[in-house]
Amino acid sequence: MIIIGEKINATRKGVAEAIEKRDSAAIAALAKSQDEAGADVIDVNSGSSRGSAADKIDDMRWLVEVVKNATKKPLAIDSENARVLSAGLEAASGVSRLWINSVSAEVNRIASVLPLVKKYSAPVVALCMDDGGIPKDVAGRLKAAEAIWVEGRKLGIAPELLYFDTLVMPIGADQNAGKMVLDTIVEIKRRFPGANTVVGLSNVSFGLPQRETLNYTFLSLCMGAGLDAAILDPNNEKVMIVLRAADALLGNDDYCMQYIRQHRKAKLAG
Amino acid sequence: MIIIGEKINATRKGVAEAIEKRDSAAIAALAKSQDEAGADVIDVNSGSSRGSAADKIDDMRWLVEVVKNATKKPLAIDSENARVLSAGLEAASGVSRLWINSVSAEVNRIASVLPLVKKYSAPVVALCMDDGGIPKDVAGRLKAAEAIWVEGRKLGIAPELLYFDTLVMPIGADQNAGKMVLDTIVEIKRRFPGANTVVGLSNVSFGLPQRETLNYTFLSLCMGAGLDAAILDPNNEKVMIVLRAADALLGNDDYCMQYIRQHRKAKLAG
Repeated sequence: MIIIGEKINATRKGVAEAIEKRDSAAIAALAKSQDEAGADVIDVNSGSSRGSAADKIDDMRWLVEVVKNATKKPLAIDSENARVLSAGLEAASGVSRLWINSVSAEVNRIASVLPLVKKYSAPVVALCMDDGGIPKDVAGRLKAAEAIWVEGRKLGIAPELLYFDTLVMPIGADQNAGKMVLDTIVEIKRRFPGANTVVGLSNVSFGLPQRETLNYTFLSLCMGAGLDAAILDPNNEKVMIVLRAADALLGNDDYCMQYIRQHRKAKLAG
Repeated sequence: MIIIGEKINATRKGVAEAIEKRDSAAIAALAKSQDEAGADVIDVNSGSSRGSAADKIDDMRWLVEVVKNATKKPLAIDSENARVLSAGLEAASGVSRLWINSVSAEVNRIASVLPLVKKYSAPVVALCMDDGGIPKDVAGRLKAAEAIWVEGRKLGIAPELLYFDTLVMPIGADQNAGKMVLDTIVEIKRRFPGANTVVGLSNVSFGLPQRETLNYTFLSLCMGAGLDAAILDPNNEKVMIVLRAADALLGNDDYCMQYIRQHRKAKLAG
């Protein structure tokens, strides 16, 4: 399982403020703590509705610069805007590996983002949605995935670079939302050989009590279905120990060493 | 998910003592607390190496009598010995539904226990092992399951009565032990249409730290693979909330009501 640390995201209030004030210490601390907690990739999202196009590019460049000086881990440059993505990827030169977050099957995003995936040989989060929005069912998600897959093949993008995000919706609003994601993961692995899957966890539990329990239970169900990566908070010890437990139970953790290490780390942390 | 409450089992020291002293209050309390915690079936195991054959039958009769007066839930009469099973089933007359725990593919157990399954139309825990012991791999478990399945068909036992127990072994000793169980669950559901699956949880985590986390994570993985029933401690709130969460996430809990109820119950309990 690849863990993408989600915390450096301008939709979080503290992060938006740190970007605005150019508070590099606050951002660096978020990068380091996620790195130490076991994140394999650090997501970097500078996006806000604030400011001009030039401001947004400046924000991303500054943010990437700070994060790449704070951690040696791969970075996921995260924006809906291809120009901001492009600026972030340039600013990240020297980083061991770059990810792109995200493309979708929306016509303009396929056209503007997939060439960047090709150029940087970057693993990419590929949202299973299109110009019609988020599909209501498995078939709609697969159709969106296929549009990205087909275009990726045309450009010669390696299947392994595609991390299809099956788009988790709240089960509190639609009780089939969880099952739909699990079925989509299985189908994507079957239909698009070599391609990977990724989910963001927290949406699934929206509106329900004890959300963390739903989130980590959903993570283990997704892992059982074949999930390859998750976007989550690596500083959440309950989620992390379940992730390591599921990896061990699925036979993906030699001698259960990662699980035991996670347990010790949490114990030492108190 | 069918929850079989595991606590009235003579391998637990307190229970063995209560049976020996004929302490019906202690046993009744265990039955009631499991009932109230959400057990669908109460397991009743009087087995010990102590005493004569007649003593063992007396123990089971007494135990069943106490439990059936303490709860209206179905009982699972639990013994390796067909004569003890038979005595327990007789003593349980009047109980809403009887389960048998367990049969296996061992020649003498097939011959002695399956006729009781037929006689009582009782759901039965069918261990995927044979006279060679617990098989080392999926194929061996499926072979044992098939022997029980074939004999069951001959006797006209409904497939729905068979709850194949895939026999969970510690991942600390064999890191493929968890994956093997998951694969066996999927294959049993595919090969034996209508048949059900069941696991006992706690073995999987033997020898590892933070066992509860491994146990409930394994439960959710098994549920994702298609598990129908689990033998567990329904008074363990962490396991129960994950069970309800997994059911909700798999789309098996209308309006997430069972999940929300479990959350409230745990919150009230403090």
